[in-house]
Amino acid sequence: MSFSQRLAARADQIQTCLDDVLSTFGHLPVTEGMRYATRGGKRLRGFLVMEAGALFDVPDAQSVRAAAAIEVLHAYSLVHDDLPCMDDDDLRRGLPTVHRKWDEATAVLVGDALQTLAFELLAGEATHPSVSVRIGLVATLATAAGAQGMVLGQALDIAAETTARPLTLDEITELQASKTGALIRWSAEAGAILAEADPVPLRAYATALGLAFQIADDILDVEGDAAKAGKRLQKDADAGKATFVSHLGLDGARARALALADEAQAALDPYGARAETLREAARFVIARDL
Amino acid sequence: MSFSQRLAARADQIQTCLDDVLSTFGHLPVTEGMRYATRGGKRLRGFLVMEAGALFDVPDAQSVRAAAAIEVLHAYSLVHDDLPCMDDDDLRRGLPTVHRKWDEATAVLVGDALQTLAFELLAGEATHPSVSVRIGLVATLATAAGAQGMVLGQALDIAAETTARPLTLDEITELQASKTGALIRWSAEAGAILAEADPVPLRAYATALGLAFQIADDILDVEGDAAKAGKRLQKDADAGKATFVSHLGLDGARARALALADEAQAALDPYGARAETLREAARFVIARDL
Repeated sequence: MSFSQRLAARADQIQTCLDDVLSTFGHLPVTEGMRYATRGGKRLRGFLVMEAGALFDVPDAQSVRAAAAIEVLHAYSLVHDDLPCMDDDDLRRGLPTVHRKWDEATAVLVGDALQTLAFELLAGEATHPSVSVRIGLVATLATAAGAQGMVLGQALDIAAETTARPLTLDEITELQASKTGALIRWSAEAGAILAEADPVPLRAYATALGLAFQIADDILDVEGDAAKAGKRLQKDADAGKATFVSHLGLDGARARALALADEAQAALDPYGARAETLREAARFVIARDL
Repeated sequence: MSFSQRLAARADQIQTCLDDVLSTFGHLPVTEGMRYATRGGKRLRGFLVMEAGALFDVPDAQSVRAAAAIEVLHAYSLVHDDLPCMDDDDLRRGLPTVHRKWDEATAVLVGDALQTLAFELLAGEATHPSVSVRIGLVATLATAAGAQGMVLGQALDIAAETTARPLTLDEITELQASKTGALIRWSAEAGAILAEADPVPLRAYATALGLAFQIADDILDVEGDAAKAGKRLQKDADAGKATFVSHLGLDGARARALALADEAQAALDPYGARAETLREAARFVIARDL
């Protein structure tokens, strides 16, 4: 099975899990919006959970719930990020954003309820028989998602818009380590948490992978095709924001992303050949053309 | 100690806990907004957690964390409810709402991070030595707060605004059982969960108390003093919304609230004299004049 087939197969498993969970939620705009906002996407975070779990033979039936949880949390952050008072985006994954399809109030509530659902999924018995494992997943996701993780990154991003000078490379790296890095790190670590294994090698892998991912995103923002990406591009340049590309140039950014992908792959040495799919993921995140 | 002194003393304990937790969060607008949004208020929900816990001799050091969690979750719901796209309120607890003091983007993030913090608090070891108890708190709060609890109530409330006919009394009762009732029920039940005791009597108590609270709120919305309440009143009448008062009249609503407060007190019979403070709470919620 090729890497892209494997990515698609994991996405299907995660979608089936989400369909099951969301089938119990009725048919108000808010619950329809929850289904809408959690469809599509590459499911990279959920894929990392399941493939990291597979290193330790964690059953799919367990890891798919943690994968669904991180995808639901990621979806909440996108729905709120797209709001008029935030990035004001009309398009996401090629479709109208939630506040464009319904309205802003529904989008606020959809995001709110999706965040709650992430924790509900992790806390559920089906996620793992051990309550220690489940509470570990909840506690680490809360730290990754909150005001010392993802929301911190978003807040730094907003603060940067009102600062007179552009961010330095170190500041952008720190911002991204929170804004997108925290959830990507959690995704890989969750595989180890589910197995009650040492999360340190996976954390090193995901730290490098997350940064490579973000640099590739900056490159795509400049070079990408909006129709393929399914969202507005050139946003950073239009806003005059400092990015990895504005600091390093396109070639420099590509070289940096490549070095980080190599670093990510090297961090997987302790797992030998079993980690080949995760190594492919590191090569994939810098080669996306979506 | 009088009831109002006891309420104030619990509020102080909860504030101290929140101050400790939030002291580690830095000084961006989003973290300042989290502190701002979690100050003040009666802390009724946190009070219920701690007093319900006290029935079973749960140490304050444990119950105060669950109390802080529900207050933080309640604060998130208020910050998002006040947004221009929701209730569009300028004043909360006598002060500018978060989006008026900062901006809408900050208010969205403040609410988001407060929700995360609620689950982080519950998952933390200091909340209870037993991981089963902590996962029980997380799972039940997620159910109470999400699209089958509080957010469901908010969604029903929004849906009601676009319905041609006013809601029936049964529909209002159902809506409020989710919108405000779910968190109040969780608060009382959390005391039993912390003690690994039967939550059923406390659930019956809090179900009646929550409805009495909401009817009293509808009465205050008509009769109250906006300066004392620290928020805009007459909102429902101005919006032409059906309420307990529009259905039952003022006297009918008062009689219904009184009957529910009696029902709440009766549900505490299994706990005898120990439950006197919770009984006073039931009388308090229908006698508030703030």
